[in-house]
Amino acid sequence: MNIVTNNKWIGQRTIRPDGVDKVTGRAAFAADTTMPGMIWGKILRSPHPHARIKSINTTKAQALPGVKAVVTARDIVDFPIEKGAVMLGIQDMRWMCRNVMARDKALFPGHPVAAVAATSEAIAAEACELIEVDYEVLPWAIEIDDALKADAPILHEFNLFDGKPSNIVGKIEHNKGDIADGFAKADVIIERSFTTRPVHQGYIEPHACLISVAADGKTTIWSSSQGQFMVRAMTAHLSGIPQSDIRAIPAEIGGGFGGKTIVYLEPIATLLAKKSGRPVKMVMTREEVMRATGPTSGSKSMVKIGATKDGKITAAQGTFYLQAGAFPGSPIRGAAGCSFAPYDIANVLSVGYDVCSNRSKVAAYRAPGAPIGAFAVECVMDELASALKMDPLDFRLKNAARQGTKAPYGPVFPRIGYVETLEVAKEHPHYAAPLSSEPGRLRGRGVASGFWFNAGGESSAQVNITEDGNVVVTTGHPDIGGSRAGIANICAELLGIDYRRVSVVIGDTQTVGFSNLTGGSRVLFASAMVVTQSAEKVIHTLRERAAKIWGIDPEAVKWENGSAHPVSPNAGQFEPLTLAELADKAPSMGGPIGAGVQLNTQGAEGGFGTHICDVEVDTELGIVRVIRYTAVQDVGRAIHPGYVEGQLQGGVAQGIGWALNEEYIYTKDGKVDNPGFLDYRMPVCSDLPMIDCALVEVANPKHPQGVKGVGEVPLVPVMAAVANAVHTALGLRFDSLPMSPPKVAAMLDGELRQAAE
Amino acid sequence: MNIVTNNKWIGQRTIRPDGVDKVTGRAAFAADTTMPGMIWGKILRSPHPHARIKSINTTKAQALPGVKAVVTARDIVDFPIEKGAVMLGIQDMRWMCRNVMARDKALFPGHPVAAVAATSEAIAAEACELIEVDYEVLPWAIEIDDALKADAPILHEFNLFDGKPSNIVGKIEHNKGDIADGFAKADVIIERSFTTRPVHQGYIEPHACLISVAADGKTTIWSSSQGQFMVRAMTAHLSGIPQSDIRAIPAEIGGGFGGKTIVYLEPIATLLAKKSGRPVKMVMTREEVMRATGPTSGSKSMVKIGATKDGKITAAQGTFYLQAGAFPGSPIRGAAGCSFAPYDIANVLSVGYDVCSNRSKVAAYRAPGAPIGAFAVECVMDELASALKMDPLDFRLKNAARQGTKAPYGPVFPRIGYVETLEVAKEHPHYAAPLSSEPGRLRGRGVASGFWFNAGGESSAQVNITEDGNVVVTTGHPDIGGSRAGIANICAELLGIDYRRVSVVIGDTQTVGFSNLTGGSRVLFASAMVVTQSAEKVIHTLRERAAKIWGIDPEAVKWENGSAHPVSPNAGQFEPLTLAELADKAPSMGGPIGAGVQLNTQGAEGGFGTHICDVEVDTELGIVRVIRYTAVQDVGRAIHPGYVEGQLQGGVAQGIGWALNEEYIYTKDGKVDNPGFLDYRMPVCSDLPMIDCALVEVANPKHPQGVKGVGEVPLVPVMAAVANAVHTALGLRFDSLPMSPPKVAAMLDGELRQAAE
Repeated sequence: MNIVTNNKWIGQRTIRPDGVDKVTGRAAFAADTTMPGMIWGKILRSPHPHARIKSINTTKAQALPGVKAVVTARDIVDFPIEKGAVMLGIQDMRWMCRNVMARDKALFPGHPVAAVAATSEAIAAEACELIEVDYEVLPWAIEIDDALKADAPILHEFNLFDGKPSNIVGKIEHNKGDIADGFAKADVIIERSFTTRPVHQGYIEPHACLISVAADGKTTIWSSSQGQFMVRAMTAHLSGIPQSDIRAIPAEIGGGFGGKTIVYLEPIATLLAKKSGRPVKMVMTREEVMRATGPTSGSKSMVKIGATKDGKITAAQGTFYLQAGAFPGSPIRGAAGCSFAPYDIANVLSVGYDVCSNRSKVAAYRAPGAPIGAFAVECVMDELASALKMDPLDFRLKNAARQGTKAPYGPVFPRIGYVETLEVAKEHPHYAAPLSSEPGRLRGRGVASGFWFNAGGESSAQVNITEDGNVVVTTGHPDIGGSRAGIANICAELLGIDYRRVSVVIGDTQTVGFSNLTGGSRVLFASAMVVTQSAEKVIHTLRERAAKIWGIDPEAVKWENGSAHPVSPNAGQFEPLTLAELADKAPSMGGPIGAGVQLNTQGAEGGFGTHICDVEVDTELGIVRVIRYTAVQDVGRAIHPGYVEGQLQGGVAQGIGWALNEEYIYTKDGKVDNPGFLDYRMPVCSDLPMIDCALVEVANPKHPQGVKGVGEVPLVPVMAAVANAVHTALGLRFDSLPMSPPKVAAMLDGELRQAAE
Repeated sequence: MNIVTNNKWIGQRTIRPDGVDKVTGRAAFAADTTMPGMIWGKILRSPHPHARIKSINTTKAQALPGVKAVVTARDIVDFPIEKGAVMLGIQDMRWMCRNVMARDKALFPGHPVAAVAATSEAIAAEACELIEVDYEVLPWAIEIDDALKADAPILHEFNLFDGKPSNIVGKIEHNKGDIADGFAKADVIIERSFTTRPVHQGYIEPHACLISVAADGKTTIWSSSQGQFMVRAMTAHLSGIPQSDIRAIPAEIGGGFGGKTIVYLEPIATLLAKKSGRPVKMVMTREEVMRATGPTSGSKSMVKIGATKDGKITAAQGTFYLQAGAFPGSPIRGAAGCSFAPYDIANVLSVGYDVCSNRSKVAAYRAPGAPIGAFAVECVMDELASALKMDPLDFRLKNAARQGTKAPYGPVFPRIGYVETLEVAKEHPHYAAPLSSEPGRLRGRGVASGFWFNAGGESSAQVNITEDGNVVVTTGHPDIGGSRAGIANICAELLGIDYRRVSVVIGDTQTVGFSNLTGGSRVLFASAMVVTQSAEKVIHTLRERAAKIWGIDPEAVKWENGSAHPVSPNAGQFEPLTLAELADKAPSMGGPIGAGVQLNTQGAEGGFGTHICDVEVDTELGIVRVIRYTAVQDVGRAIHPGYVEGQLQGGVAQGIGWALNEEYIYTKDGKVDNPGFLDYRMPVCSDLPMIDCALVEVANPKHPQGVKGVGEVPLVPVMAAVANAVHTALGLRFDSLPMSPPKVAAMLDGELRQAAE
């Protein structure tokens, strides 16, 4: 399956450029930064899930010695909302300005209401307590069902659905063929409902920033984000400072998984810094992260799939309600768009609803929405295969999307690798390995597939040759998943030099061209494209200069193994000129050697994965333990296989947490009761098996190195694969996540009771 | 004289971009930087002017608690010197590796011998005292005459002059016409000898750096220098770390004047950081700056000029001995090359000798060498004018170099502005103002001219449009003299927008293309050129995009006043598209808008100045006070007149110090006795009059904005102008600098004695 290549560096597990820095503690994260005269910012947050803010009195806080500035929503640029407004995307400043700081209403417990900067964290915290907020507490709704009730409290009166104020703030619909006709042709139809809980991205590093604003408005931001340009843009919008005056420096990032694609602290710290004239540092506590930053949506789904007796799917229908939290913008596109994408189905209706409720605004989380949809669809697929007495992989193979299939969300697939993932999974030793249960420890195996769109978008790169003939590459997106290592491999390959001679640097907003944020599995796809074009320009210059030295035509010079050579003996007999030699001659031949490219990249193709999961269920305690896991994925081209596997393993680990344990517990007064890693149960190493990866390489024909995004797909199938394995083990289907010990135990108790009755 | 233009921003005194940062203390200088785990480096320096280092024992120092690393010359990459070697330029690593740390011999008092890094400055200093160095003290020579004696101690045995080991380490000769023939035609010949003393650049900020080296060699340098790429290159050479692994970040710089064009601390701090695994900070004391960093050369000159009775110069000869200090490399090119350049003389012989002696290695200082040569030549010119009974400006006018004059140092001048400076000086109210002496306070007026080559060289720039339609420009040289302000003006002019919408950023070595250092008055010349080409590419893109939107040919679109317009009504009727509008549409039209250029710039043309100086001499105390000063200079095109005037005023201030007060006092054991600003007398504000500037704008035809370098010329004529004024006041000629109160008083006493005898 692997592409035969004779690459020297592409495909190698080269040493990661950021490895030493990260294991030795030298890597500078946002919270590591300091500045002379720096003071600390703290946020006062709403204790109520839903409350009108009648007044805020900051007099006492401002009078506290050590307090240098106080900020409320009045200081933040307002983006008014007209009646009937529809909000789209993470760049919609209308909700962003209200999420960063409550304006008129607090919409979730933890919603910022005011902020203070003071000479110490303790004084800032004390000052927050001195701020008097007069709230009119309103009725609230946390869960989707509560938010959809006829008499539900409405979060946003401006929002109309079916002409009436509603908490349904968005809808997406994909329609293909004739759904009624499709189901009429089916011999077997399975229809089920599912729920999933909001789960947090769980990045190790809480949000942090240090911001300095000079008296003339020149602003420097160090912060942890998935995009320094996003930070610059949103801070500019909310503070009124022009983008050209803001230098947003990307700190090393301790995880993001989508959760750092929006800003929480930066506009507030900017305004505190502007007011106080002092650099302001803000670092969230874990509790603040859990209360006030985006988890992904909780959901409620209905999925119905029909097939003929011989296993051909005739119709599929999905309805996905996703929690947006306090403001519009849940990932209904991922849920409704991705879930049926692995299948070639003539008739599909897939509908997503975006539902606001009084919890923190959701943020992107690895393949946003897709795992939610896949959980529902892939469980129904499993049940349908059972009903048809087909092997679940064979059932998927029979219905698999291929080149030419029109995806339910619109496009016609080019050459894709879904079928290959199914075939590799089928042939994988894992799928054939025996699985024997013991009394009280029941084992089961499940499979599931998943899809993610992947993305291209805007990226910029600069490739410069140093005076000593080495290479520095600058790109514009934070390296979360190994983009530096991948780019070093690619650049070494193109220039024909050792990868250690290539340094890859992440530029700040003022030293590299605009680059979209790190997300959507876009970075290596897009940056490899602009780096390749830049490197090709550099090679062109190198060939021109060698040609000039030799007095021959540039077309008669080729670049090979790090040197210029005549293309053939006919072109002339010359000793090769190395990169170092040409670098040394640069001053006398026109100047420095370097080139940059800025591009809106196109041609990112979707990715598919198929997972095999073995579980063991402790029937007494209800504990589900994943004992073996194999992730098969079409990764396009694994530029750095170690990093690609890391993506797959990381995605699976998060999916296992989502499947088995993670959930927010709410108190009766509408507040999160488990805002920390002791009580919010994420999987740790000892919870997980070694996660095997099988990389299928179906090169993306629209990319110079065949790159496809790989980071999101691995989270998509996991919950379904685990649930299908649990079903095999117990014969019971869980339609609601997490399959936590109490729930599993309760389900087993119920079964036992039923059996006893 | 000023060029008539209708520029909106070029020529405006716009608010300087770094102004607020500098007056509020927010600007980050190298000594302001910190890193977690940072330790301090200190240098042990030789107490002897000349000594063989027989052994260095660092055992006790290394054993001192808190000491983390010790470095000696053994740790620094050696560049061996072959017999008969000739060293050229500041990039010659053979002397650089020995200047940074003594190898075999200490060559001046203050020469680094070892360095220590420890957890505090105090411990590092204590450890330095514990290092045992076994010196064999050698005879030494400080002054040029001592170094040239037949039995002088030789600093570098490898160096041969006339086939024998010598302290003469270099020679330059410019020969034009037939000197003997020229003098034969002269009616009047004046021949005089002169000496000048070494003077320090006197930058406010001592050398400082903070350097971190990871276990994999990735190195980050914050330092104060005139070129981050110079720092990267030299540190790479001396540490063995590839350039691609070194990120040299230019801190704001507190003055350099040429003195920060080489490295002192960076390679040592790098090696200490590498050995200790900790970030190392080093900050020189003022005493270290004065003892061990480069002043400019002291000198000894003989100048002979002959002219016909009607004032036409027939021949000129100069011989200039310049102190190099401990290693070869005094600015003989500036002395021998510039001093006769203002004049059209048929027969010239100008010779420079580079002489080593046991004082710190000289570094570049504003128009290196040229003021030394000009002091001698312009004093002789003044005396010759007197002898010919000609006005000194008329005498210069009669002999002035013009377009087509072949300069004694080689090239034929293009359109230059020297004559214009003389004409402006002649017409200046200052030149006609009455000047009345009082008893004991004698007044005099002097004039002098000067020339500097100016330089182009390698520069890189990037011009990016932000999402909100503003502009960020990145260049690669530290801004010492206002390059950011100049570039903002130029970019605003080209793009037709307010200059406040342009941010100019100095990139570090890994985020901008290679750029030569800030020196030679090259920066605005070179960076304006690459910025202009980048901006033109951006405008081309903007026109293309507007054309695409309008469906017309890009050639039918013009860029004017910050918007795209159809070139004529025939091209179509369209509303102009602003930069902000086109920036907003960028994602859908191909991506970000930005362009970069890297170039070895050519076409920097020399600059000329003519100064008028009034002095008042207190005949009792011997104090010379400059009471009025006017600097007339051909500045090409004053992009930011305020900054240009600042350059002129700064150069004059330094020249007045050089002329009147600055000198090193040596103890009998060969050490500097006045290594601080209390005893080394630089002029302060109260020593100086307001320095008037008359900007003559003869645009450089080889530059898109007509830019010529302006920073060096203003230092060149000053000492001669002051000396000529003193001559007018007292009727006495000083052939040796400084004209300090003791020397002036002694000269007046001598005169009085002579008169009495």
